[in-house]
Amino acid sequence: MIRSGALGIGDPLPSIRSLYRTRKISPATAQSAYQQLISEGLAESRPRSGFFVSAKPADSRWRRPHAPLAGAPVPRLEPTRLEVSDLVFQTLEASRHREVVPLGSAFPSPLLFPWKKLARYLGRSARHMDPWKTVESLPPGSLELRRQIARRYVRLGMSVGIEEIVVTAGALEALNLALQTVTRPGDTIAVESPTFYGCLQAAERAQLKVVEIPTRAGEGIDLIALEAALEREPIRACWVMTTLQHPTGSSLSLERKQQLARMLAERSIPLIEDDAYAELQFAAKPLPPAKCFDRRGLILHCGSFSKCLAPGYRIGWVAAGRFTEEIVRRKMEGSIATSLPVQLGIAEMLRSGGYDAHLARLRRALARQQADVLRSIERAFPRECQVTVPAGGYFLWIGCPDRVDALAVHRAALEFGVTVAPGPIFSARREFAHHLRLNCGHPSTAPLERGLERLGRLLA
Amino acid sequence: MIRSGALGIGDPLPSIRSLYRTRKISPATAQSAYQQLISEGLAESRPRSGFFVSAKPADSRWRRPHAPLAGAPVPRLEPTRLEVSDLVFQTLEASRHREVVPLGSAFPSPLLFPWKKLARYLGRSARHMDPWKTVESLPPGSLELRRQIARRYVRLGMSVGIEEIVVTAGALEALNLALQTVTRPGDTIAVESPTFYGCLQAAERAQLKVVEIPTRAGEGIDLIALEAALEREPIRACWVMTTLQHPTGSSLSLERKQQLARMLAERSIPLIEDDAYAELQFAAKPLPPAKCFDRRGLILHCGSFSKCLAPGYRIGWVAAGRFTEEIVRRKMEGSIATSLPVQLGIAEMLRSGGYDAHLARLRRALARQQADVLRSIERAFPRECQVTVPAGGYFLWIGCPDRVDALAVHRAALEFGVTVAPGPIFSARREFAHHLRLNCGHPSTAPLERGLERLGRLLA
Repeated sequence: MIRSGALGIGDPLPSIRSLYRTRKISPATAQSAYQQLISEGLAESRPRSGFFVSAKPADSRWRRPHAPLAGAPVPRLEPTRLEVSDLVFQTLEASRHREVVPLGSAFPSPLLFPWKKLARYLGRSARHMDPWKTVESLPPGSLELRRQIARRYVRLGMSVGIEEIVVTAGALEALNLALQTVTRPGDTIAVESPTFYGCLQAAERAQLKVVEIPTRAGEGIDLIALEAALEREPIRACWVMTTLQHPTGSSLSLERKQQLARMLAERSIPLIEDDAYAELQFAAKPLPPAKCFDRRGLILHCGSFSKCLAPGYRIGWVAAGRFTEEIVRRKMEGSIATSLPVQLGIAEMLRSGGYDAHLARLRRALARQQADVLRSIERAFPRECQVTVPAGGYFLWIGCPDRVDALAVHRAALEFGVTVAPGPIFSARREFAHHLRLNCGHPSTAPLERGLERLGRLLA
Repeated sequence: MIRSGALGIGDPLPSIRSLYRTRKISPATAQSAYQQLISEGLAESRPRSGFFVSAKPADSRWRRPHAPLAGAPVPRLEPTRLEVSDLVFQTLEASRHREVVPLGSAFPSPLLFPWKKLARYLGRSARHMDPWKTVESLPPGSLELRRQIARRYVRLGMSVGIEEIVVTAGALEALNLALQTVTRPGDTIAVESPTFYGCLQAAERAQLKVVEIPTRAGEGIDLIALEAALEREPIRACWVMTTLQHPTGSSLSLERKQQLARMLAERSIPLIEDDAYAELQFAAKPLPPAKCFDRRGLILHCGSFSKCLAPGYRIGWVAAGRFTEEIVRRKMEGSIATSLPVQLGIAEMLRSGGYDAHLARLRRALARQQADVLRSIERAFPRECQVTVPAGGYFLWIGCPDRVDALAVHRAALEFGVTVAPGPIFSARREFAHHLRLNCGHPSTAPLERGLERLGRLLA
């Protein structure tokens, strides 16, 4: 405990008596354990007060609690064949250290968000929180927040009732709940390819089979291929990102969203619509989701504030149509509720905090950063690399020449402190061996520039 | 949207043009929709400004967003045979209205908690939050909070390393993650009987078979019966509440905790130790959990601040031993992370907010309330009712005479605005048909007194 930093200098240690009583050891053993701590310089005995963590650590093996994060070494990966899930976690793990150039990160720069304002609304909401709300705001969640979310739909010209909105711990929980609600183990679902790895992990945990439908950069999911699959396979649900798809950045046009909604409604197949990036569309008039064509309550529309307003606050939702009651139950069974003061704080921010002004600034910043990274790529990457230019978000999907092995690039780049997300993590069949997802959600800095240059040389 | 309260008086409505464009309807249809809204008195047209929600609602069918909660009628239940899961949700549902006498509630009175202090620490932590922490504090979670949790273990004379502590959205998420980690679908686990219904729901969702081991009021799980079951069945894990068991309120003695830990360790069987009520022990020296005898990292100890410090904040944890890495992955796959400002706020409160002084006050209040309810029961209930007197927490487990049907009592009591938790929801085999769990976590009030009296007459 002392070495891990849980106990700091001068902290009191348990008495010998409490130690041998609770651990069921002999008093002599407890005594000798303290003798050993003292001889190692970790503890000291003070007359008539007991034992304390030593003020003069004689031992350089101490690990400070903050040290492992602050000065973390870049993880070194074994050049062995890795499971996709391991790769996902290694990529996430490597990207969490701020010294690393985060081209493989799934998150935009945390410096793009209105933290002071959020803190003010959070503190204020918590101060004025009616304690009974902790009981009354059990799932579906805080009425204030669900009202604000419903109003965002109105702005898109859509009517989504408060009563079908269930607040969740971010979009990922919403998506998992949705998937578990509309499927049973052994079912088959249709997913995109490439797709967000979280979708593949969720399907695996729910013991589902997946049919991969191609998604094309700039167009979104191939509806002809989807229709063929619907005819061929007993597909129980579809999971589609209709706007700023992860990782390709493509969006379905409004016509194609309508076509998708109709195609599934005709067959009574639920659509899990992952719309986590909707608010990051650069266009002045953002397009509504396929949910706006939902006549039969078959579309579970999953949204989030994690990418557009408050990363780390973990607030998302699902507008769950006919599945709302079942979703509410699963939410309660899984984690009872979403943190209430955070729900109220976000609701207050939406109501009066200049959310739209923030969104406008955020979109401008992301568009600028995308342009910066595209310029660096233009300069540094081999000509044969094909780069998507999404109309929003903060990902670029890079198709490299066939001789480039994305996994090898991933490993080699880590060696010089740059992360990338290799294509195979976006596919159940581990395709896209020559693709990379690059994060352009961070402001241009010298290390980022250098990282892109080195990556370009590596690809060349 | 207007009727549900998502749109308030004077709010702007989408233009006809945006409506027909996004909904793919004809301009005439959009126009006639607005005509209808106007004729129903819901909308009004303002020259050159567009349409707005009417300031003079002509229609009494409007539902105000707050109305359904504030003036909610007591739900009336059909006198049909109900699924246990439905019963659980009906009980929870009925208990969330503050007008109801909450003898069936799973929560203590929300008025027992230090809301102002919590709000101050929450606001302060959010204001000073380093934005990079949103990335660095991904699971296992905030180092500050995990450090504070580790220090609580030290006070019990236990050494639980920071590195095995994973922060979760309350104990229930911790328990679910633990169960999913140590079992596969089709496995058998041992659970208590009666047990917390959340355990049965978790087992059902994880597709497990359960072996029910009797738990006796005052003693806790029957270790002889457990050992026999371990010999007989291929048990993959045990889920046990070792302290202030839900619903019986019983605690295992320290010797029996050690025996439980040893019995399972000898067979390499993981123990999921649900310890959500540990801090509510009335004793001056609370007993440590079975986790303190965990030599092989087989005990997943699940704790929470929801019952003892901050209901609705949804902060819990699991000290997961050898399963830590797998738990971290499942946490990230399920909901990415636990709300960061809330983690930091709770950590600050633990570090400097007088947590122990609050706990002492809370325990005194709960002991007083327990005594009050016991006095009312003594006065009003039939003599044959057997009542446990737990040394902590806020539940009483009442054994009624065999002629009393707990489900019928549940339904009949709801009719006069009193909730109770009927015995069958605490058993996979729907036993305890004559038992009730009563909540004594609320301060004595006239309605509570009257509710207990009426319940007593009903039982008589």
